[in-house]
Amino acid sequence: MHFPQLAAFSGNADIIRVIGHRGARGIMPENTIEGFAFTLDCGVTLLEFDVSVTRDGVPVITHNNHLTKSIVRDKDGNWLRGIEPKVSDLDWSDLAQLDVGGLDGLSEYGQRFPDQAFLYNARIPRLHDLCALISTPDHQDVHLMLELKSDPEKLEDAKGRAADVAAVVAVVREMQLTDRTIMHSFDWGLLAECKRLAPEMPTSFLTKLPNNSSDAGEDQATNASPDLTAANVCIPDLVAQTGGRLWCPHYLDVTEETVARAQQLGLGVAVWTVNEPKDIDRMIALNVDAIVSDYPGRVQRRLLNHGLTWSSQSVTDKPSN
Amino acid sequence: MHFPQLAAFSGNADIIRVIGHRGARGIMPENTIEGFAFTLDCGVTLLEFDVSVTRDGVPVITHNNHLTKSIVRDKDGNWLRGIEPKVSDLDWSDLAQLDVGGLDGLSEYGQRFPDQAFLYNARIPRLHDLCALISTPDHQDVHLMLELKSDPEKLEDAKGRAADVAAVVAVVREMQLTDRTIMHSFDWGLLAECKRLAPEMPTSFLTKLPNNSSDAGEDQATNASPDLTAANVCIPDLVAQTGGRLWCPHYLDVTEETVARAQQLGLGVAVWTVNEPKDIDRMIALNVDAIVSDYPGRVQRRLLNHGLTWSSQSVTDKPSN
Repeated sequence: MHFPQLAAFSGNADIIRVIGHRGARGIMPENTIEGFAFTLDCGVTLLEFDVSVTRDGVPVITHNNHLTKSIVRDKDGNWLRGIEPKVSDLDWSDLAQLDVGGLDGLSEYGQRFPDQAFLYNARIPRLHDLCALISTPDHQDVHLMLELKSDPEKLEDAKGRAADVAAVVAVVREMQLTDRTIMHSFDWGLLAECKRLAPEMPTSFLTKLPNNSSDAGEDQATNASPDLTAANVCIPDLVAQTGGRLWCPHYLDVTEETVARAQQLGLGVAVWTVNEPKDIDRMIALNVDAIVSDYPGRVQRRLLNHGLTWSSQSVTDKPSN
Repeated sequence: MHFPQLAAFSGNADIIRVIGHRGARGIMPENTIEGFAFTLDCGVTLLEFDVSVTRDGVPVITHNNHLTKSIVRDKDGNWLRGIEPKVSDLDWSDLAQLDVGGLDGLSEYGQRFPDQAFLYNARIPRLHDLCALISTPDHQDVHLMLELKSDPEKLEDAKGRAADVAAVVAVVREMQLTDRTIMHSFDWGLLAECKRLAPEMPTSFLTKLPNNSSDAGEDQATNASPDLTAANVCIPDLVAQTGGRLWCPHYLDVTEETVARAQQLGLGVAVWTVNEPKDIDRMIALNVDAIVSDYPGRVQRRLLNHGLTWSSQSVTDKPSN
């Protein structure tokens, strides 16, 4: 099947794509409309973000399965206290009260992003809200890397998982964005469900080898991936055999050989989450297709320093922001 | 004389003001409407920026006396080459062709700001353009720290200097922003001219002691300041005697004693340009009124970590962005 959106995520000799991680988490609050709008204003047209589904079936953009104390303030502006409620146990109307415009700077997670702006009255967006933003005439070149979050307590609930995927697909279809969206997950079972329910969208397979430590403050979903450490597992081959079109490895997991093998198999290689200049430079040297970063502006600058760009519109074509 | 804008630049036990330096130079191209809009979106309502006057008398927002190779691209997208033309030798129509949306990352100046976004088609704004932006209903709480750039080749040209100040004052008056603007300069002669031509606006005196090295890629204007190293010169006293209402020292030049002395004299103390967390923390400890930063979001975050804020609207009041 031909997927027109794949070209937007593919690099070439002059281009490495830049994908804004949760918008531009290093600079603006993650997974907010404010952050996505900022990212687009900087000429970054590929957005990565995370989708869960509320109790009442609304796909919303938030990373962890539970609301996170270091990110969420209640309607009175106080940090969340006590037990962190699960997104799937709340209705959309509950979430709409909350403020996710800033990080608690005293938390371990907050300290990871000292330059992230602190906003007031920034809401958890619905998937529909982001789709509406990129449906405006100025943003017809924007593409979505839509990460389906995996619920570790729901791995055996085939019916519930299918309903969640269906709710997400319904929004993308309703907004007529299936040809600008890639379905992305660590949970290969959810990706299989995507292929069944929405074969018009390509799938993107996230991987992370267990030797890299987890990031403070973030849910890990690798438990829903297959065993990638088994003898004789060549990850790009496995992704291709499973029907993936993009392979999205942790940046510490890739080598010249695995990138080349993936590209030989026709897979795009989008590495995550690459923030430090030396790591960005290494990914550039490895000729990946795309770099997912919390600091997409920093990646753009590194690309320009190497005589590369991120868009098929060259510098002299002056792509409009 | 009562100047209502002074309150916006004054701190107290709970508040230190945050002033965006050239917008937010660390994140967005300096002295651009795109950068100012970003800064305002982050809840920073005090903007510092630099004004020169073109040959045809248009006040424009740009820092150096000459267009700078590391910042300016021509209409074909190429970096400026050869001799850097002087802003005051060009008409506004010449400047309107140029793109100042990004830094040449291979230049010394460009390397100072590796996270600054690289935009296409960002123009040198007129002062009028910024005034129009903050005249919208959403931005009625925004105040301007308008730096008058000093031309070292024009220091003896009293008539030309007065004409430049008059051109700037005319725009601020036309836009009805005199009660939201502070006139700011290293050139104390230009500030005297401001007081004469526009006594309705307070003046803000920039100082920098010569022991601190200059910043790569930037014009220095301290040659138009009086000799601050002479024996018995107490800078805050000198500023107060000269009729200043704000004292804006380089952050390495202040001590607990000089800050306290300035505040005792009724001066606001706004330190520049404070970017590193340890320096921000030192300024917080010194209880300055305001911090000028290329990373205003970082300063906001540091303030919150210390239990302080930057606005009289408290966190629970949820100031809208």
